[in-house]
Amino acid sequence: MDEKIRVVQYGLGPIGCKSIEFLTERNHIDIVGAIDSDPKKVGVDIGDLATLPEPLGLRVEDNSKEALREINADIVVLTTTSSLEQICPQILDIVSTGKNIVSTCEELMYPWLTNPEIAGMLDAAAREYNVSVLSTGVNPGFLMDFLPLVMTGVCRNVNQVTVERIQNAQFRRLPFQTKIGVGLTVPQFEEKATQGSLRHVGLTESMHLIASGLGWRLEETTDIVNPVIASQPMVASSFTVKSGEVLGVNQIGRGYVNGEEVITLVFKAALGEPDPRDRILINGVPDIDMVIPGGINGDMATCAIIVNAIPVVIQSPPGLRTMADISPISFSKRL
Amino acid sequence: MDEKIRVVQYGLGPIGCKSIEFLTERNHIDIVGAIDSDPKKVGVDIGDLATLPEPLGLRVEDNSKEALREINADIVVLTTTSSLEQICPQILDIVSTGKNIVSTCEELMYPWLTNPEIAGMLDAAAREYNVSVLSTGVNPGFLMDFLPLVMTGVCRNVNQVTVERIQNAQFRRLPFQTKIGVGLTVPQFEEKATQGSLRHVGLTESMHLIASGLGWRLEETTDIVNPVIASQPMVASSFTVKSGEVLGVNQIGRGYVNGEEVITLVFKAALGEPDPRDRILINGVPDIDMVIPGGINGDMATCAIIVNAIPVVIQSPPGLRTMADISPISFSKRL
Repeated sequence: MDEKIRVVQYGLGPIGCKSIEFLTERNHIDIVGAIDSDPKKVGVDIGDLATLPEPLGLRVEDNSKEALREINADIVVLTTTSSLEQICPQILDIVSTGKNIVSTCEELMYPWLTNPEIAGMLDAAAREYNVSVLSTGVNPGFLMDFLPLVMTGVCRNVNQVTVERIQNAQFRRLPFQTKIGVGLTVPQFEEKATQGSLRHVGLTESMHLIASGLGWRLEETTDIVNPVIASQPMVASSFTVKSGEVLGVNQIGRGYVNGEEVITLVFKAALGEPDPRDRILINGVPDIDMVIPGGINGDMATCAIIVNAIPVVIQSPPGLRTMADISPISFSKRL
Repeated sequence: MDEKIRVVQYGLGPIGCKSIEFLTERNHIDIVGAIDSDPKKVGVDIGDLATLPEPLGLRVEDNSKEALREINADIVVLTTTSSLEQICPQILDIVSTGKNIVSTCEELMYPWLTNPEIAGMLDAAAREYNVSVLSTGVNPGFLMDFLPLVMTGVCRNVNQVTVERIQNAQFRRLPFQTKIGVGLTVPQFEEKATQGSLRHVGLTESMHLIASGLGWRLEETTDIVNPVIASQPMVASSFTVKSGEVLGVNQIGRGYVNGEEVITLVFKAALGEPDPRDRILINGVPDIDMVIPGGINGDMATCAIIVNAIPVVIQSPPGLRTMADISPISFSKRL
């Protein structure tokens, strides 16, 4: 590709700012616009916002609809929300200006069964304007759905798929520890879990992506959040957790066909969790047991895959795409 | 897919026969033809040839050009040879009858740099007849090229890719043990290696596929075959190997950019080889170390992936495709 790809960064939270940093490292990409609704960010240089060594000479704009029309770009990196309902009008605005989209919106990763109406509407709009829309990330989008699906490619038969993503939260940043409930009492944890604020978003979408690829129709999915409870006191950088309090989260997604549990996704993140890993187990012919000891760092991998996805999304057939129906995404940069 | 996919099996060696068996297990596939040039196989029922419990009511035909014209099919599974030059006229015949192709021909997996003339001719022919041609398999095609490439999708940067495929040949079938030189003296091994009959075909193609995906231009590739030598006597099912004789093969492919070794592929198969595994190591940001302890059985996985590839190849854009530019292949069967 000789001409550079023109990218708009839409959403400048932690993932959006890291995305700016990663985008500047690619010699085939030009950042041509940045959009965020936060008045404190509007007008700020994106280099400063992303804490890069130097300003980039490009300021955040707030009126997204007008800005979108005026910016001549190939694709928008959309990192605003996990919610399909909230992201829907943003997507419609973007595609109506003829721009492709790569997003980290978890609920957009495979919305065909969770919200077929919005999925159909977004797909139709993307086709109308001849652009492609993809949501991806490390999880959902890669480790717990795309990668196990790809591994079944060498299987003669598949009966059951299990994925474990086990993380030791001891040395992770404070917002991550807070997000998984570290230091809460069990009742506090249960309350937050019920409200949905402790939930990792995406297990259901991951199960649907796996099942759709395998040709399975899941009759039921469950997604249950449990606390990991300290059996002895534990000290992390910013927390002292007493015995009986919460060390983190253990979330399990289960998908069923004919009453059998055919997909099991285990997402566990807790202080002091032993043997952190990403692991894929396929019960089939042959059985496959694949492990990444230590696991893959989530924030970095999510930003990397959305940046790596950019040229693939631009070249994809128009419509709302999933990781199962586009060409493989890989890192790409001339050495 | 409600209508069944009509498949011709072309080439009825061990892989072709196993492919017949796997094809019969898929409810979305009909085998509608079988072709082989061996007079001993022509006229034989393919169920008998594949040692299935029952004949399938379909006999092997020999005049491939005429047979191809007469058979109404969507795709041909082409398992005749490892050689690009030998498979080229077969492919031209097949695509001229409007049929897609999935092949196990190792040299066809990424021929754009090893033989750009034939690659261009096959690509043009496939486009002319609006069909797709893909070569795949477990290796080359998956473990040592596609899978590492896919893993770089979550990387911010990649400096070096290493893949190890280490197999213990102790309990493998006799032809495999013979193929890797078990029981030869070192001079016998060297002679066969020089002739090319001991070589695993595909390391160079795998390196080119990885490099093309990463946007790297390899200035040099090497592919060196060494014997694994017994330091003490060893007994396998059909061999007694003396100390100093050959236990198997250790083949290493290396790819270079700017004088640096950026791709290393290690294929080692020997009697008594400890710690058999498939392992992918990416030196980058982040580093990735992924392992499948025990490794994946090659013959089964190759047949599985060509059968799994069938619906994907049929739906691909026309032309000579590679694993890096088609939608991901997964197992698929309604539970």
